[in-house]
Amino acid sequence: MKSKCFYCFLFLIFLGLQDCCEGRLLLASPKPDRDNAAGYARWLVSQSSWGILSTISMEFGGSPFGNVVSFSDGVVDKSTGIPYFYLTTLDPTARNALKDHRSSLTISEYPLGTCGNADPENPVCAKITLTGKLVLLDANSKETKFAQTALFTKHPEMKGWPKSHNFRIFKLKIENIFMINWFGGPKPLTVAQYLKYKI
Amino acid sequence: MKSKCFYCFLFLIFLGLQDCCEGRLLLASPKPDRDNAAGYARWLVSQSSWGILSTISMEFGGSPFGNVVSFSDGVVDKSTGIPYFYLTTLDPTARNALKDHRSSLTISEYPLGTCGNADPENPVCAKITLTGKLVLLDANSKETKFAQTALFTKHPEMKGWPKSHNFRIFKLKIENIFMINWFGGPKPLTVAQYLKYKI
Repeated sequence: MKSKCFYCFLFLIFLGLQDCCEGRLLLASPKPDRDNAAGYARWLVSQSSWGILSTISMEFGGSPFGNVVSFSDGVVDKSTGIPYFYLTTLDPTARNALKDHRSSLTISEYPLGTCGNADPENPVCAKITLTGKLVLLDANSKETKFAQTALFTKHPEMKGWPKSHNFRIFKLKIENIFMINWFGGPKPLTVAQYLKYKI
Repeated sequence: MKSKCFYCFLFLIFLGLQDCCEGRLLLASPKPDRDNAAGYARWLVSQSSWGILSTISMEFGGSPFGNVVSFSDGVVDKSTGIPYFYLTTLDPTARNALKDHRSSLTISEYPLGTCGNADPENPVCAKITLTGKLVLLDANSKETKFAQTALFTKHPEMKGWPKSHNFRIFKLKIENIFMINWFGGPKPLTVAQYLKYKI
């Protein structure tokens, strides 16, 4: 009977990881060493399925406006580090971006469940902010085709979202990376180092 | 032996809720009806322990800069709906806010584990953005004392954070509420309705 409880334990851990925190992990992979800044940043982005996308609000006097969004940076065997989004102009984020491209995507390691007992604001629980320009992709480009596959693979229900809402694919053209994954302030990391890292 | 597995099941669900998604829930409470906009918004804020605080970046040409922060809106028997933060000017968010108060706090229901199988961007998985002014509190005020208790109760490790980092208490003076918790766009909800709601 011990073994039954053991399998029950394993199954529930599996359920917990799959359904509770991050339902759409493609391939869970162990986190890199904290000193490997590019590797850690790419791991955090590829393992996460959602974050907060901030734009400059047209409606609220130029205030920064954060919004919960899903994203994907690639498919199972090809992570690019570039976040792609499936947005509708029924939502303020896409409307804001079309008027002012300045934007940032922020992701916490906390919902991945890999921070142990650390508080979400504790620097050992990693956080990353990718700052840049949020741009609409040309609907007929090769990149759009790739991005759509990346999004629909990680977020299968997007395929069924209402056509009438006119969802379009946007990407964040990253210009700066702010990542904290330990004590001592943000890790030095250039966009080139981040993008060229192979995972 | 069935009952052993049952208790194992309950214990692991408990562990999952406590450690995986949201380690510092004070009193987990069921979510209100989705048509109760004020109740739902206050529930989401009081049940969450972290979010993304966006400010206008001094460093990156006025871009919106989202940052992962912990917060608290009260103590076990007194939720106020007002988010309080424990921030240091070693971090860009506090520095930005001292130059330009415009800010927003964004919270997703997703990490609470109460969205079922819905994607984080699906409107049935609630999201809230509180837009307003991020202000530093007077260190000697009554409100600061209350806010510190609220923060240290929900985030016990904050008590031990380095004195040398000069953490100070900030609050978001809410001016607008954007909440989606179902289809049909943001729920109409004034700041007065939100603040006066008793939970």
